[in-house]
Amino acid sequence: MHILILGAAGMVGRKLTERLARDGALGGRAIAKATLHDIVEPQAPANVPFAIRTIASDFAAPGEAEKLVAERPDVIFHLAAIVSGEAEADFDKGYRINLDGTRHLFDAVRLIGDGYRPRLVFTSSIAVFGAPFPEAIHDEFFTTPLTSYGTQKAIGELLLSDYSRRGFFDGVGIRLPTICVRPGKPNKAASGFFSNIIREPLNGEEAVLPVSEDVRHWHASPRSAVGFLIHAATLDTAKLGPRRNLTMPGLSVTVAEQIEALRRVAGDKVVARIRREPDPAIIRIVEGWPRNFDASRAESLGFKAEKTFDEIIRVHIEDELGGRFVN
Amino acid sequence: MHILILGAAGMVGRKLTERLARDGALGGRAIAKATLHDIVEPQAPANVPFAIRTIASDFAAPGEAEKLVAERPDVIFHLAAIVSGEAEADFDKGYRINLDGTRHLFDAVRLIGDGYRPRLVFTSSIAVFGAPFPEAIHDEFFTTPLTSYGTQKAIGELLLSDYSRRGFFDGVGIRLPTICVRPGKPNKAASGFFSNIIREPLNGEEAVLPVSEDVRHWHASPRSAVGFLIHAATLDTAKLGPRRNLTMPGLSVTVAEQIEALRRVAGDKVVARIRREPDPAIIRIVEGWPRNFDASRAESLGFKAEKTFDEIIRVHIEDELGGRFVN
Repeated sequence: MHILILGAAGMVGRKLTERLARDGALGGRAIAKATLHDIVEPQAPANVPFAIRTIASDFAAPGEAEKLVAERPDVIFHLAAIVSGEAEADFDKGYRINLDGTRHLFDAVRLIGDGYRPRLVFTSSIAVFGAPFPEAIHDEFFTTPLTSYGTQKAIGELLLSDYSRRGFFDGVGIRLPTICVRPGKPNKAASGFFSNIIREPLNGEEAVLPVSEDVRHWHASPRSAVGFLIHAATLDTAKLGPRRNLTMPGLSVTVAEQIEALRRVAGDKVVARIRREPDPAIIRIVEGWPRNFDASRAESLGFKAEKTFDEIIRVHIEDELGGRFVN
Repeated sequence: MHILILGAAGMVGRKLTERLARDGALGGRAIAKATLHDIVEPQAPANVPFAIRTIASDFAAPGEAEKLVAERPDVIFHLAAIVSGEAEADFDKGYRINLDGTRHLFDAVRLIGDGYRPRLVFTSSIAVFGAPFPEAIHDEFFTTPLTSYGTQKAIGELLLSDYSRRGFFDGVGIRLPTICVRPGKPNKAASGFFSNIIREPLNGEEAVLPVSEDVRHWHASPRSAVGFLIHAATLDTAKLGPRRNLTMPGLSVTVAEQIEALRRVAGDKVVARIRREPDPAIIRIVEGWPRNFDASRAESLGFKAEKTFDEIIRVHIEDELGGRFVN
C-alpha cells in the first residue's frame, strides 16, 4: 500500500513516519511506499523497509494537491496546518492553508473519481471548542471556536463529513489533546509550559511555570497521538456512520498533578528546577482553554491514551531520553 | 440608512421588503435606500417610501460581491442560497453559491475595512442538524448535517462568527424553522405537504398528505420569519457575545395537530379536502428531520414565534387570503 503524509516534517508527522517505518505495515497490509510532504523537505528516517519519496511544496498552491494525490495513495494523513498563533496573526494565510488547502486536497481526491476512495485521516483540534464549557466537554457539544484556527479546523471537519457521506473518500477527523511531553526546545506557544516544566527539569534545566498550579488541562503523549492516527487509518468506519469527527481520549490533570507525577517518577531534585513566575498574558489565554473531556465515543471505538501523568512522563523518558534523565 | 437584501426575489425576501416598505424604518432609523438583489430581478413593492434599486446577478461571480457592498450598506440581509434539494443534486453549484458566494460576500465587507462594520444577518437552517436527535434540540447541540446544504450553512455560521469576532462585521445567524403556511403553488419540495394541507383546502382545492399524522415538525409563519430578520438586524449584539448563531423559536406540532387546528379555524368541509396518500420516499426523508427544539436562547433575546398552529393558519388567512377562505 501507498501512504501519503501531509505535514510530515512536523513533530507528529515525524513520529508517525518513524512508527510506520518500524511497523512496515498498516492495518495488516505491507507498506510499499510512503510519500512525505511538507512546506520544507521532510527527513526520511533511517532503515525504512519501503520506498520513500519526500516533497517540499505549498500544498495549497494551485495544482499542488492534484499532483500529491495523482498516484492514488491508499491512505492520506492530512496533518498540514498553520498553527493557532500564526493563523490568528495572519488572517489570509490561515484561511488559505487551513481552509482552502484542505478543501483543495479534498477536491483533488474527489475529482479523481473512478472508484478511488482512500482513507483520509484529518487532524483537527480541541480548538474547535470555545468557552464557556461544561465540566467535561462531551461528544455532542457544539463547536463555537474562539480563534480563526479553531474555525478553520471546524470547517475542515464539516467538509470531511460531507465528502465522506458522498463517498468521495473515507474520512476520519481526530481532535488531538495537547501533546505532552512535547520534545525539542521550549517555544513561545502559550501552551509550551505544560511540556517545559517536565522536559527541561529532566534535562537538568530550569523551567518557568507561568500559571497557577490549579490550572487543569487535557493531555496525551506523542506516542498516543501516533497511536490515534494509526487507529483512525485502520478502524472500521462503518461504526462511525456519518459522524466522522472524534474527540480523542486524553488525560485531564492539573499542573499540581503534573508536578507530583514528576516527583514520583524523577524525584525532588528534578521538581526543584521548576520556577514559578506568573505571566498575566498566559494566565488569561489559558483561562479560555478546555480543561476536561468525556471522550466516550472514541474510547468505545478503541482509541487509547495514557491513564496517568506518570505514564506520560515515562513515555517521554523512554522515547526521547533513552531511559535516562538528569537527577 | 441603506439596506442590502441578497435573495430579495425569494418568498422571505419579498415579504421582508414589503415589511420594510410598510415600516419605512429599521430599528428607529429611517430607511433612505434599499438595494434588492437576486439571480433574477426582484420586484419592488408599490408605494415604497425610500429609494429602491434592483439588481439581477450571480452574487458568487468574481467581483460581484464587491460591487454589491461598495456603497457600504448599513445592514445586509444575506438570504441568498441554492436550496437543499438542488445543493444535493449539484455538488459544485451548491458549494459555489452557498459556501464560496457567502465567503466572497463576507470578504468583500472585510476588505472595505476603514471602520466599515455593517450588521449582517445570515439565514441559516435547521438542516445544520442531523439525526439522531435528542427529544428537543437544545442550543448547545452539535451540528452534524446530513446534506451538503446543511454543511454549507454550518460553514457559513462558523465564518460569520469568526468574521464578527474579528470585527469585520456585526453578524447574526438565524436558523429558520420550516416556514408554514408557505404561499404560492404546491411544489416538489419534500416538506411541501406541511403547507399544502393547509393552503390548498383553504383555496377549495384537494391536498395530498403523504405521511402519517403522527409526524412531528417545527414551524413558524412567514410573518414570524420576517420578524426574526428584523429583530436580528436591530438587537443589541453585545448580548450575543461570540456565539452568533441562533436557533429561532417555532412551534412543534404533529400533522394531526395541524389538521385539528385547521378544523377549529376553518371547519370540517375544509379539512375533508385532505387526501391520505402515503409516499414511502417522502416518509423516509421526513424521518431524518428535526421534530422539536428548545430555542430558549433566542426567546430570551426577544425572538418571537406563534404559540399555536391556529395562529399560524390565521396569519396565512390574513396575510395571503385577505381574511377569507373557501368554505
